[in-house]
Amino acid sequence: MAVRLLKRWIVGNPLETKHMVHERLPKWKALAVFSSDALSSVAYATQEILIPLSLFSVAAMSWSIPIALCITALLIAVSTSYWQTIRSYPNGGGAYLVVMDNLGVRPALVTAAALLIDYVLTVSVSVAAGVEAITSAVPVLYEHRLTLGCIAIGIVTMINLRGVRESGTVFALPTYLFIFSFVLLIGVGLFKLLTGSLQPQATLVGTAYPALPVFLILRAFASGCAALTGIEAISNGVPAFRKPESKNAQITLLWMALILSAFFLGITALSHYLLIHPSETETVISLLARQILGDGALYYLVQLSTALILLLAANTSFADFPRVCSLLAKDRFLPRQLSSLGDRLVFSNGIFLLGLVSALLLIVFQGTTHYLIPLYAIGVFLSFTMSQSGMVKHHWKLREPGWKVSLALNALGGVTTAVVLLVIAVTKFSHGAWVVIVLIPLLSLWFRGTREHYRKVAAQLVITDRVDLLKPLKHVVVLPISGIHRGVVDAVQYARSIATDIRVVHVELEEESTARVKHSWDKLNSGLELTILKSPYRSVVQPILEYIRKVDGESGDDLLTVVIPEFVTARWWQTLFHNQTALIIRTALLFQRGKVVTSVRYHLSR
Amino acid sequence: MAVRLLKRWIVGNPLETKHMVHERLPKWKALAVFSSDALSSVAYATQEILIPLSLFSVAAMSWSIPIALCITALLIAVSTSYWQTIRSYPNGGGAYLVVMDNLGVRPALVTAAALLIDYVLTVSVSVAAGVEAITSAVPVLYEHRLTLGCIAIGIVTMINLRGVRESGTVFALPTYLFIFSFVLLIGVGLFKLLTGSLQPQATLVGTAYPALPVFLILRAFASGCAALTGIEAISNGVPAFRKPESKNAQITLLWMALILSAFFLGITALSHYLLIHPSETETVISLLARQILGDGALYYLVQLSTALILLLAANTSFADFPRVCSLLAKDRFLPRQLSSLGDRLVFSNGIFLLGLVSALLLIVFQGTTHYLIPLYAIGVFLSFTMSQSGMVKHHWKLREPGWKVSLALNALGGVTTAVVLLVIAVTKFSHGAWVVIVLIPLLSLWFRGTREHYRKVAAQLVITDRVDLLKPLKHVVVLPISGIHRGVVDAVQYARSIATDIRVVHVELEEESTARVKHSWDKLNSGLELTILKSPYRSVVQPILEYIRKVDGESGDDLLTVVIPEFVTARWWQTLFHNQTALIIRTALLFQRGKVVTSVRYHLSR
Repeated sequence: MAVRLLKRWIVGNPLETKHMVHERLPKWKALAVFSSDALSSVAYATQEILIPLSLFSVAAMSWSIPIALCITALLIAVSTSYWQTIRSYPNGGGAYLVVMDNLGVRPALVTAAALLIDYVLTVSVSVAAGVEAITSAVPVLYEHRLTLGCIAIGIVTMINLRGVRESGTVFALPTYLFIFSFVLLIGVGLFKLLTGSLQPQATLVGTAYPALPVFLILRAFASGCAALTGIEAISNGVPAFRKPESKNAQITLLWMALILSAFFLGITALSHYLLIHPSETETVISLLARQILGDGALYYLVQLSTALILLLAANTSFADFPRVCSLLAKDRFLPRQLSSLGDRLVFSNGIFLLGLVSALLLIVFQGTTHYLIPLYAIGVFLSFTMSQSGMVKHHWKLREPGWKVSLALNALGGVTTAVVLLVIAVTKFSHGAWVVIVLIPLLSLWFRGTREHYRKVAAQLVITDRVDLLKPLKHVVVLPISGIHRGVVDAVQYARSIATDIRVVHVELEEESTARVKHSWDKLNSGLELTILKSPYRSVVQPILEYIRKVDGESGDDLLTVVIPEFVTARWWQTLFHNQTALIIRTALLFQRGKVVTSVRYHLSR
Repeated sequence: MAVRLLKRWIVGNPLETKHMVHERLPKWKALAVFSSDALSSVAYATQEILIPLSLFSVAAMSWSIPIALCITALLIAVSTSYWQTIRSYPNGGGAYLVVMDNLGVRPALVTAAALLIDYVLTVSVSVAAGVEAITSAVPVLYEHRLTLGCIAIGIVTMINLRGVRESGTVFALPTYLFIFSFVLLIGVGLFKLLTGSLQPQATLVGTAYPALPVFLILRAFASGCAALTGIEAISNGVPAFRKPESKNAQITLLWMALILSAFFLGITALSHYLLIHPSETETVISLLARQILGDGALYYLVQLSTALILLLAANTSFADFPRVCSLLAKDRFLPRQLSSLGDRLVFSNGIFLLGLVSALLLIVFQGTTHYLIPLYAIGVFLSFTMSQSGMVKHHWKLREPGWKVSLALNALGGVTTAVVLLVIAVTKFSHGAWVVIVLIPLLSLWFRGTREHYRKVAAQLVITDRVDLLKPLKHVVVLPISGIHRGVVDAVQYARSIATDIRVVHVELEEESTARVKHSWDKLNSGLELTILKSPYRSVVQPILEYIRKVDGESGDDLLTVVIPEFVTARWWQTLFHNQTALIIRTALLFQRGKVVTSVRYHLSR
């Protein structure tokens, strides 16, 4: 009862199935809903490029400019590919569906594994980065960042368990606040640079673009690819757009790609010209905003809006992860509990699972974005590659008008992302990427094992032959008693109501008390004989089990019911004061065929 | 199965009740069995006197001599009291029994609480001190002392779960080894001192016996009183002696008191003359033995025999604690599980509990004797005082020949120990004694609450009126099904065998699948109607519970059985892949009267 009240208080009252509605979003709302994940990566992408370079030398950081340009080119290629996907899959082209549709089950499961890992990491990375945005502005919170991160995940989980309904409008505010504050940051920064009113606080030592190991440049590039995460969101959500859905979705995708490119290049360029050096306790964005906007209200606006959009990005995974889980569970690749809509019309089990796993990940990686990033991009780029390959197959199969151009664009996107995937896997392998590389095949194998289990169960449960439901069963009841009390009376009456062949047994632990039990039993005049079982080893359960085996052997193929008189204490913890004989007998008989264990309960009132 | 094999391997095969035997001990064996606890306290008592004094000044440590003399006087008083107890209670005069017999239930429960706490602390303190004896000799083990302590408790627990049978002989070796090595240590020490071949390594600064705060002297005295722990053991164990039991026990008590006094005074005197200064990483005994015997084999013999007798002392609690628990449990002051003899004819639950609690205590107090000592003596001296008070009452009631002298001796013992108890409580209160002072009354209240619970249960279970076991019951069966499969066939056949009024119900989650279920059901030709229950909130369990309530309301005071078709997966973890509907229904109905829940299981083979 208390548990139920607590649940109601946290997640709200249950909602009826008929209340399920689907909101149709105008483009400006859709941009807010679907782009938070992609745009928010601006908060950490530049920093991730600078960190490996800065470890080499300050001058090496100038390489961030060409690297950022490469990533922007990659962004254009990937966006173009998804532009195609939107047209071909107007009902929503999530990578799992596209791959399943075109490449079959095994590649689809690999994609699904990559997607699930990606969603979990989106939560962990976004929350870690969001907390870092806050602790950059309020350094006293730095040592509490892990606690803050876990609280944030807890809140987002709770909100999602309640069900997020007013999504469009609620999402618009933080997204447009973020866009506004970053336009301001980059605009003011460029203006001050051009008018010469802003100078780098450090001076560059050595020449720009010094010779670097190629591996280091590739590693910085791989880290920066985190900027592309979330770009596929619009193509998954096409049905949520107003009509014409595909066209509106494509226009929104274009806008998102433009804003993302502008922000990413702007931040990287400003960081370069102001010679920002990554610090452990303060983010690059914070260092930049402090220099450009000073230490006033505008600086705090940038930090706050960054934290908010990152939380929003984490929140989108709470819609996507349970949705993909439920798709997999409906196909029996995951336990079926993940496919059931909860009280509030959301996939509660999936939401709960995501909250738990992402919080654990956050704790393992000490709430630090930089430690999580190497794991992040693998899943994302694997699903990009699989999805584009699926699209290539799609165009090849259907050969709709203009299919050759479409195929070429998707092939280009697929090959590019595959190459990037390889670069990330190699350069980040020892930094943690290996975990994901090992996990993806294991997960996809597990999906198949799960389906196989369900298949076996179904095969065993199907009724193949003619069955006779009217077939009478011969029925023996074994009724163990420890003494003569109220509960025994109920149990005997019940046994009489379900069968005629009743064996009442008592296990002798002390001769004296057994004599008393026998005497009281005879006084009850039940007409039933009491069998006394010896117990040389003082166990209550073993002699009963042996007796059951014996009776079962005698009566052949009939059914045997063990009726156990059990009293239920008034409060649950009082159970600890009593022997758990019923529970032990039930457990012992759990795996034996043809035994039914029935507890007849006598309820104590105090 | 695996669990059972593991248990067999650890604790051995079960023993039959008839194998229970009682060994009768000659005096020399009895001394070994019953005195390990008392004698082993020599290992830490002197050190505990020196620590508070040494914190004041080196010269202050000379006060250890008069303090040790006082404690020896106390020892004589307490031994004399127990000498009386042995004569009056030849069947074993444990403090709990003596107090229950003479002073009634409440004082007896306070005594029992003190005793149980004392036994737990005996284990923790002895193991901590034993490990310190080892780490003094082998300093590299110092940082692993907590692990070593836990391993030691684990081993002793395991040995006791197996049952210690050959106790007398096994105990003799380490006890006499200890006596031998300490006679050697003290003898050689005194000889070398008298012949002048041994000199203090430090020189005394300041005058001996400087003025000290009285509180400090009392605190040092209170700490040293740990020397008296275990002195009551012989009076508990009188029936184990050979005839004449009382006389033999008294002689053994005399010997034990003599040896203990000699060792304690000897060690304290030597420590004083050699100006031993307590160290954190090495015990006083170890420092002493190193100076007197050098760094050779004899030194290691002293350390090893000290560790062994301390382990033996811990072991005695594993006999006493479960015994007192079982006495309390038989009187229903503790959960009855503590009164049952296990497989190996020992009170397994009590042994397990003691191992667990003492290990936890060891961990909380970082495996350090000095931190544990302030908690130790309270329980011991409280039980001394209660026991002596009981003896005073005993003499007053019976007035046997010479009762006046006996009463006076016991009264003297009781008053002395009461005064010491007060001194310990005051001087050690803030060092941890408060925990025990709070815990003892709480525990004794809990004992009474437990008995009250059992009394209430018994009152509710007693059959007061005439009952009619032949009274026929009207019987309704509710049978919920999720689909039509093999398990349903078994459940329907079972339901038919126990009742005629059977209501088969199905909860509709999706209209489509419900139609399929209905169609398959009709094809089965069971002659039973299938009721479809709507579920607006997509819960499977709620509509079933509501239906049960409705049927129960209609059918009046008759019994309702819910028969649930359940399949049992081939491996236990596969259960996680399936909905736990049966479990949820069972739990929901647990506290409702007149509902019987029966699972009819269908076993999957793979």
